[in-house]
Amino acid sequence: MESNNRFDKEYEVQYEQHWEKLQQALDDDNLEGFRSEFLDMHPYDQAMFFMEQEKAIRLQIYTYLSPEEIGDIMESMDEEDTQVLMAEMDPRFASMVLAEMSADNAVDILNELEKDQVASFLTIMDKEAAEEIKQLLHYEEKTAGSIMTTEFVATYKTYTAQQTMQQLKEDAPEAETIYYLYVLDKDKRLVGVLSLRDLIVANENTLIEDIMSEKIVAVSVGKDQEEVAQMMRDYDFLALPVVDFQDHLLGIITVDDILDVMEEEASEDYSKLAGVSDMDKPHDNAFVSARKRLPWLIILLFLGMFTASLIGRFEETLNQVAVLAIFIPLIAGMAGNTGTQALAVAVRGLANGDYGKQGKAKLVMREACTGLINGIVCGLVITLVIYLWKDSIYLGLLVGISIAATLLVATLAGALVPILMERMHIDPAVASGPFITTINDIISILIYFGMATVFMGFLT
Amino acid sequence: MESNNRFDKEYEVQYEQHWEKLQQALDDDNLEGFRSEFLDMHPYDQAMFFMEQEKAIRLQIYTYLSPEEIGDIMESMDEEDTQVLMAEMDPRFASMVLAEMSADNAVDILNELEKDQVASFLTIMDKEAAEEIKQLLHYEEKTAGSIMTTEFVATYKTYTAQQTMQQLKEDAPEAETIYYLYVLDKDKRLVGVLSLRDLIVANENTLIEDIMSEKIVAVSVGKDQEEVAQMMRDYDFLALPVVDFQDHLLGIITVDDILDVMEEEASEDYSKLAGVSDMDKPHDNAFVSARKRLPWLIILLFLGMFTASLIGRFEETLNQVAVLAIFIPLIAGMAGNTGTQALAVAVRGLANGDYGKQGKAKLVMREACTGLINGIVCGLVITLVIYLWKDSIYLGLLVGISIAATLLVATLAGALVPILMERMHIDPAVASGPFITTINDIISILIYFGMATVFMGFLT
Repeated sequence: MESNNRFDKEYEVQYEQHWEKLQQALDDDNLEGFRSEFLDMHPYDQAMFFMEQEKAIRLQIYTYLSPEEIGDIMESMDEEDTQVLMAEMDPRFASMVLAEMSADNAVDILNELEKDQVASFLTIMDKEAAEEIKQLLHYEEKTAGSIMTTEFVATYKTYTAQQTMQQLKEDAPEAETIYYLYVLDKDKRLVGVLSLRDLIVANENTLIEDIMSEKIVAVSVGKDQEEVAQMMRDYDFLALPVVDFQDHLLGIITVDDILDVMEEEASEDYSKLAGVSDMDKPHDNAFVSARKRLPWLIILLFLGMFTASLIGRFEETLNQVAVLAIFIPLIAGMAGNTGTQALAVAVRGLANGDYGKQGKAKLVMREACTGLINGIVCGLVITLVIYLWKDSIYLGLLVGISIAATLLVATLAGALVPILMERMHIDPAVASGPFITTINDIISILIYFGMATVFMGFLT
Repeated sequence: MESNNRFDKEYEVQYEQHWEKLQQALDDDNLEGFRSEFLDMHPYDQAMFFMEQEKAIRLQIYTYLSPEEIGDIMESMDEEDTQVLMAEMDPRFASMVLAEMSADNAVDILNELEKDQVASFLTIMDKEAAEEIKQLLHYEEKTAGSIMTTEFVATYKTYTAQQTMQQLKEDAPEAETIYYLYVLDKDKRLVGVLSLRDLIVANENTLIEDIMSEKIVAVSVGKDQEEVAQMMRDYDFLALPVVDFQDHLLGIITVDDILDVMEEEASEDYSKLAGVSDMDKPHDNAFVSARKRLPWLIILLFLGMFTASLIGRFEETLNQVAVLAIFIPLIAGMAGNTGTQALAVAVRGLANGDYGKQGKAKLVMREACTGLINGIVCGLVITLVIYLWKDSIYLGLLVGISIAATLLVATLAGALVPILMERMHIDPAVASGPFITTINDIISILIYFGMATVFMGFLT
């Protein structure tokens, strides 16, 4: 998209000017000049500038900024960039930075380190911050507990609107979000929720319990992050409270963290469909990339060998009618394509919770019919083309019928495999494209050579 | 995940109780009973209940609820469900419902209808609402303009904090979000932004221009929605202002709409990778599904025929050494798998903006090296296996070298195709798995039979 308004244009110009001034200040070792330019930028832009620099320059910048300022930058960074920083910072400085960050983000960073590294960071860290982080470190990765923050605003149901507003003014600078206030009873159990909007329009002397909503949607601390994201999307909340089994409020999950979760989960499903278990990072070198992809390729290689040995059993047939070999990739390819289509539809549908128990049976039925329709259409087309090309109606019929049967079975397999995996409590997204393609290769070859044996008399 | 806290359990129990009471009220035609139960639920749950009912029951429910109440339900619905409702509601009632919805969501619904239907809805609609909707209808689908809402809170830079707070209390019930306030000059141009948090902690008599931020991040009205989502994720905003080319504030985009955009775009990339241009809906029947998938399958069928005709050229070779045919699916399959992996990495990376100009050259280099490493490893494995299985070192070498060369070229192709597509201003995600698989089929067969001609003397 072209930039056609002042903000886009100004933004770019500002950006370049900032950049130049910052480089100049670094060259001149001008601390004040650097700080005034740098702190004027959004943390995301600060992070972009920071990661563009050589390591030597970054070491210079650390001496210019406070741990809190570095913490702000790290909150805007990708996981891999934060790891670069953690490795190059002085450990004492790094622990001060972590202490200044919001606890949930600090935990994300620590979760990527070795256990003894984490322990040593926590030892030298400010005690209060370390306590908060230790609590969050207990929670399993990818659960509500691991993405929640403990910096929320709570009030009591016996407070008035004015008292709460006063409390809020004090808490606001620290809190992750102030747009929802959580209402506790005297045992600190969550009993209500109040949006800032409701507080603002309320009369000053109103009691919180009279304006709070008791229809709380909360998640338990062990809930899967993908389900949390789904809930947030469905209910359009900006934040969700996280509670333990006794309804004590442990933390909140804010929508900005959910945006990252959604991006992460979408990337994950996408890579699984492509058969890349762990997506390559932009900075990975070829050896790292190769190591990530090889396991899949080796498995598929052996499955492919199995396919080859299947065809090997029909070597005699091939020796008699070599022309049969010509259509092997076509039939196997079509089986793979249609299977991947059906797979994607089923995996996406299951992830979105589109299909109930009855829905799944209906899905399988529909895929069977879809496979049949597609099979008949493609089969007719190919029979005609081969008849015109090779002038053999029998060869045409053999390939056409094989394609029709293959498409039916392959489409069905594409839908059934993820459903069965879900029933076995395996994430259906693991049923990747290459996997279903290889299964369908095998199916298609059995069908094709099975048919060929039937047609043998007409072909030789 | 098991529900192990009061909220999850209570929620389910509440849910079932609601459900039963609602059904009972409908059976008894008890309007008051129905309303008090129904309006006690979250709109998302209302929508779930509503769509579970038969059409006849839904027609009964329409008579129980006001257009505004139906509007709230529709805001929580999927696109396809809203279309069902639009088709079955009385047009006059439907236009009243649309008028009550927030304009951006009403436009989303209208965008799915025929032009003359839209025109007739707008004619019978409340004038003010119709005007607002007409303005938004101008904007192209999937741009910032089409997802923005015009219900924002604006203030002027010469106001005090107290005046603004007063204004806010009036606007709050209507506004889509009150957590950012947009500051205008006397020509109604956007000159600053203020978070509600800053307003709350400010002194009552402070002027807005003294506390507002002038570092505005705004998007132009024609910007692609995917880029808007990216910006929101990077900068962690809850809302983004949308301006025209003269910096007039046209509307805002809130984070809850962005969650839907991200879900939509992720689904789209996922389906493209699988070669399903338009994802099947759960309610689609087999004919609709088949029609959506057939175009791709037919294209791939003809590409497959091309592959077949390529092999046909080597029929003589195949007649002499039928065993060659055995390994065709293995080699083509490996090419497809490795190509899809490289494709997914490149498409994801390009979508995330991970690669600059230099980055792309580096990516291609890395993929070449990755392909080489994977090729050598897989080639060695397969040579060994075939040597042991078929007791022919020459056949092993032929297949091994072919696999090595194929993996190198196919990996490179997987990375190059999306990069070239991006350069030609085509969405790289269009380079789907089946497409790259078919290209790689062709490459692999040329390499394999090319090699076979070299090895011919040793094989017969």
